[in-house]
Amino acid sequence: MLSENELIEHIRRRFAPRAAVARKSGLLLGIGDDAAVLRPSGRADCVLTCDAFLENVHFLAAVHPAEAVGYKALARATSDLAAMGATPRYFLLSLALPANRTEAWLDSFLRGLARAARRLGLTLAGGDTSRHPTIAISITAVGEVSRDRAATRSGARPGDLIYVSGRLGAAQLGLELILSGLHRRRRWKPLLRRHLYPDLHLDLGRWLAERQLASAMIDTSDGLSTDLEHLCRASRVGARLWANCIPRVRVPPALLARGIDPEQLALHGGEDYELLFTVRGRLSKLIPKLHRGTPISAIGEIIRGRKMVLVKADGRSVELVARGWDHFRTK
Amino acid sequence: MLSENELIEHIRRRFAPRAAVARKSGLLLGIGDDAAVLRPSGRADCVLTCDAFLENVHFLAAVHPAEAVGYKALARATSDLAAMGATPRYFLLSLALPANRTEAWLDSFLRGLARAARRLGLTLAGGDTSRHPTIAISITAVGEVSRDRAATRSGARPGDLIYVSGRLGAAQLGLELILSGLHRRRRWKPLLRRHLYPDLHLDLGRWLAERQLASAMIDTSDGLSTDLEHLCRASRVGARLWANCIPRVRVPPALLARGIDPEQLALHGGEDYELLFTVRGRLSKLIPKLHRGTPISAIGEIIRGRKMVLVKADGRSVELVARGWDHFRTK
Repeated sequence: MLSENELIEHIRRRFAPRAAVARKSGLLLGIGDDAAVLRPSGRADCVLTCDAFLENVHFLAAVHPAEAVGYKALARATSDLAAMGATPRYFLLSLALPANRTEAWLDSFLRGLARAARRLGLTLAGGDTSRHPTIAISITAVGEVSRDRAATRSGARPGDLIYVSGRLGAAQLGLELILSGLHRRRRWKPLLRRHLYPDLHLDLGRWLAERQLASAMIDTSDGLSTDLEHLCRASRVGARLWANCIPRVRVPPALLARGIDPEQLALHGGEDYELLFTVRGRLSKLIPKLHRGTPISAIGEIIRGRKMVLVKADGRSVELVARGWDHFRTK
Repeated sequence: MLSENELIEHIRRRFAPRAAVARKSGLLLGIGDDAAVLRPSGRADCVLTCDAFLENVHFLAAVHPAEAVGYKALARATSDLAAMGATPRYFLLSLALPANRTEAWLDSFLRGLARAARRLGLTLAGGDTSRHPTIAISITAVGEVSRDRAATRSGARPGDLIYVSGRLGAAQLGLELILSGLHRRRRWKPLLRRHLYPDLHLDLGRWLAERQLASAMIDTSDGLSTDLEHLCRASRVGARLWANCIPRVRVPPALLARGIDPEQLALHGGEDYELLFTVRGRLSKLIPKLHRGTPISAIGEIIRGRKMVLVKADGRSVELVARGWDHFRTK
C-alpha cells in the first residue's frame, strides 16, 4: 500500500507538465506545495467551479470502470466551464479512497483522468488526498473567458429561441442499461459510451459566448426539464418547448419493446452535458444547424410568466414538470 | 426536508454579499450559476488550494459541534493560503449531506462557516451539493499574493534557521481529551478551543512573504515532525531541532499525571495550523520574538543531507522520525 507521500508523488509523476510548458500556461507552482500559484493572463475573467463525484451516489464502483470514473469526474466539472463559454485551464483533485483502491483501481482512475485532462485541455495544479471508506472525489476546475463575455443562466427574455446541442437522453439510456443489468450483453455495450465518457462542446460554448449570441446558457447535467427550469428561474421567465423538435437519442427497437421511451429520456435524462441556450429572435439566423460536427436544434421559445409548457406532437399543450436530477427531492 | 434548489437558496441567502461589495471584491458572478466569475486584480498571483473534511475521517459528528465543523472546514483550507503568504479572497463549498443533516445541523454548520469566512476574509463564490450517507465537505480556497512573492516549501538551504509561530500541541491535546471522553468535564472544555476553532496567522504569513524573509514555509497541519519532513523533502535538505526551544502547549498537572506528554504533542500533534518557516542566517535578526501578539520561536537549523535530528535537553542527538498525520500510512 502507498503512503500519502508516495500517493502524491505517483499522481505528480503522471501529471507533471514540463517546467517550460507549465510556466507558459501560467502555472508557477503545481502539485506538492501547500497551494498552487497561477498567474492569470490579466485580459481575461477567471471562471471557477467545483463538482463532487461520489461512490454510490454518482457512480457504482462495481459497474463503472475506474477509467470512466476518472474521465467523467473531470468532464462533469469542465462542463460547467463550457456552459459559461470559458476555456479550461487548471484543475484541483480532492481524492478520498479506501486503502484497497490505491493500486490497480487508482492506476486506471488516473489514466482516465489524464485522458480527460489532455482532451479537455486542463493541467493538474494541486489537490489533496484522504483515506475514506468509500471513494469521494471533488474536482475544482478553473477556466478563462474574455472580459464580460461569460454566458450566465440569467439573461433569457420572452421571445428568445431555445436551442440545444447534440441529442438528448443518450447518457440516461446507458444508465438504464446498467441499472437493468443489460449492459453486460455485448450488443448494448456501444450504448454505454455517452454515459461513461461524456462529450463536451467547449468550442460551441466559447463561440456562443465570445460572439455574445447566447442570452443565457446552461449545460444539461440534471436533464432538460430540470436544467431548463434552472435557466428560467434565474432569468425569471417561462418556456414553451416543441416536443417534435427535441433531438432524441436513437433507441434500438429491442429496447423500445422493453418500454424504454426516448421522449422521457430526452426530457428528463441527466448527464448528457449538452449545451442548452437561448438566443434573441433577431440573432437566431446566425445559429447554424451544425457547429463543427455538433448538431444544434431550436426546441422552443422563452415566454412571459414562470411556467414551462410542452407542445406535444398533436398540438396539445401540457405543463412540463422538472423531473430530472435533484439530490434532495423527497422521493 | 429541503429540495436541492431550496438548499442552495438557503446557502445563498446566508452568504450573498451586497452586489456593490461583490463587484468591488472582483466577484462578478457568485452562487447560483454554472460557475463563479472572478476578475483578478492583474497585479497579483493567484493562489489556489482544496481540502476535504470528511465525517469519521477528519471529524466525528457525534462529538464535534456542527458549528466547529463549519468553522474548521474553512480554516483548514485557508491555512494553506497563510502558508504561501497569500491574502484569502474567495471559496467554493462542495457539500454532501445525509437527508437528516439538512435542517438544524446545516444551520449550525453554516453559522460556523460564515463566522470563519468573516474572520478570515473570504467570500463564498459557488459550490455544489449532493446527498450522501455521511457528511463530506470539500473547500476550495482562492487567495492573492504579490507577484513572485508566494512562499514555497522548497527554498530552505543549509544554515537557515527554523522558526515556528505560537505553541505546538494544543489542537492535539483537544483531540486526545475527546478521544478519551474527558472533553465532557467542564474544567477541560477550554482546552478544546484550539482543536475546534483553529487560529490562523495570516498577517504573519503575509509579512514574511512580502518581505521575502521566509526562504521556505509550511503550515503545521499534520504535526511538526511530518510537516518539517515535507519542507525538508521539498528543499532537499535535513534539519536539526533543539527540543528545549520548541514551544509546547501547557498541559495541566492532572492531565500530565494521566500520561499526556507535551513534548510528544508538540513534535507530532496535528492541526495546530501554526507557521513553520526557515530564514537565512543573515536575516534572522529581522525576525521578532512577537508579531502582532503571536510568539515566534527559533527551534532549529537546516543542515546538509536528508536526515532530521532532535537535540534533546541533555545534549544527546536522536533521529527525528515523522510521526504525524499520514492518511495512507500502514498502521
